[in-house]
Amino acid sequence: MKLSHEQIGRFEHDGFLFFPSLFRPEEVKVLTEEVPRLYAQDRPENVREKDSDAVRTNFAAHMYSLPFAKLAHHPRLVEPIVQLFGEDVYMHQFKINGKLAFDGDVWQWHQDYGTWKNDDLMPEARAMNVAIFLDEVNEFNGPLMLIPGSHRRGVLDARHDTSTTSYPLWTIDHDTIAKLVERGGIVAPKGAPGSMILFHSCLVHASTSNLSPWNRVSVYLSLCAVSNHIRRFKRPEYIAHRDFAPLRCLPDDCLLRDYEVNLPWKDGTPEQALKPQLAA
Amino acid sequence: MKLSHEQIGRFEHDGFLFFPSLFRPEEVKVLTEEVPRLYAQDRPENVREKDSDAVRTNFAAHMYSLPFAKLAHHPRLVEPIVQLFGEDVYMHQFKINGKLAFDGDVWQWHQDYGTWKNDDLMPEARAMNVAIFLDEVNEFNGPLMLIPGSHRRGVLDARHDTSTTSYPLWTIDHDTIAKLVERGGIVAPKGAPGSMILFHSCLVHASTSNLSPWNRVSVYLSLCAVSNHIRRFKRPEYIAHRDFAPLRCLPDDCLLRDYEVNLPWKDGTPEQALKPQLAA
Repeated sequence: MKLSHEQIGRFEHDGFLFFPSLFRPEEVKVLTEEVPRLYAQDRPENVREKDSDAVRTNFAAHMYSLPFAKLAHHPRLVEPIVQLFGEDVYMHQFKINGKLAFDGDVWQWHQDYGTWKNDDLMPEARAMNVAIFLDEVNEFNGPLMLIPGSHRRGVLDARHDTSTTSYPLWTIDHDTIAKLVERGGIVAPKGAPGSMILFHSCLVHASTSNLSPWNRVSVYLSLCAVSNHIRRFKRPEYIAHRDFAPLRCLPDDCLLRDYEVNLPWKDGTPEQALKPQLAA
Repeated sequence: MKLSHEQIGRFEHDGFLFFPSLFRPEEVKVLTEEVPRLYAQDRPENVREKDSDAVRTNFAAHMYSLPFAKLAHHPRLVEPIVQLFGEDVYMHQFKINGKLAFDGDVWQWHQDYGTWKNDDLMPEARAMNVAIFLDEVNEFNGPLMLIPGSHRRGVLDARHDTSTTSYPLWTIDHDTIAKLVERGGIVAPKGAPGSMILFHSCLVHASTSNLSPWNRVSVYLSLCAVSNHIRRFKRPEYIAHRDFAPLRCLPDDCLLRDYEVNLPWKDGTPEQALKPQLAA
């Protein structure tokens, strides 16, 4: 999968690209069916909502789940990012965000790179986010809201918010958001399961709570240029990975066929992945 | 203003009617300009959000604010309700809901009549809600979400939720909501300031938090058939009114011209309106 010249121009201007129904229903099904099994597990990678047992986000499924390990090596997401960076990439972060029916809480306005810079000492914003819808996303189940063009402002001042939700986040102040929205507006891509959003790690985004009876489970993968790997291992490894080996793509049909994939954490998370470490 | 046969049929089927841009911009302006003055007042009628000083809802402005007193007697909202009930109506509740930019919190799924029945002993669901948009309502600033047809189920079981937000509410459980939505879906009318939604007091509704930089201030008026007045005065009078005299309409141009209107609470809320009382 190769981005066109027009797509690259649009990405540079808006900071994101939307690919409706990029994955076919039978491919999505392989992933969707795996989620309840992952969410039911009692492991540190499952972060639950503040006021309920609902899973807010599951980390690092590609280290212990076969379908998600295949997804992490899927050419439809790895190749466009390698193309944009002109360099190999590794998996910096891998999340399955629940935003479950009725219980899914907000994600405040933030840039992902703000956290990676502040917490992980990632040198540059040479990392890219990919969101893949496992459920239909509509106006009622808390769609991802993006401020087009906001990535061009680089890293914005942020405040570490540890109280609003169960997950600490570097968030951006209201005045800055108001100014960015005045210029770029807000868009919320909606579509069928299997749709994909590719967005810049400085693009400002948020999502509201999900009061609807429809789950809005999405996979969020963050792929980083290998030369731009993180320099500090303050956060657990299941949140900010420490293996900077380039991702090798599987064939395009990998979700539907048998392929050998390494699952190093399938019998549990190693002790050292749970703790801060001195960087190599 | 008279509803057509077709409108009455649609109301009976869906439980609501939407009137885009019913009030003209110059009429809305008279109301909008009054809101900051009301919200700035330190009076019990201003209920603030749980985690901020932002006003969640202001009660009973028609008792102390000239523009809102005129609105309470406006034929464009009073006449359709008198027509539907075939009887005079009085003002049961009058709110200006803030849902302010960034800080506006959720309203959980509920029926208004549930609260009026449980707390106020209102005999029947012969009361009607009217929402008037003072700001543009779009998909990002927490629009009112309605479940069409849900009013036909009558009063649903509800649980008194005193913790989710700063305002206690009788809320409906998730299983029931899921079933209602399966049948009726969800709609969220959007439109310009001055648009009006008229909806049945058993219509199940909710709204998400407002993370956008756009306020979404709306006036919510609840008009009750005079014969159906409340029988218990447990809640303060500024929340559930105790004056059952029929509303007399002002002329259609009342928001733009001088008319004499009574403002009994303009010098403060009387002591007895703040406390429970034995019903007459």
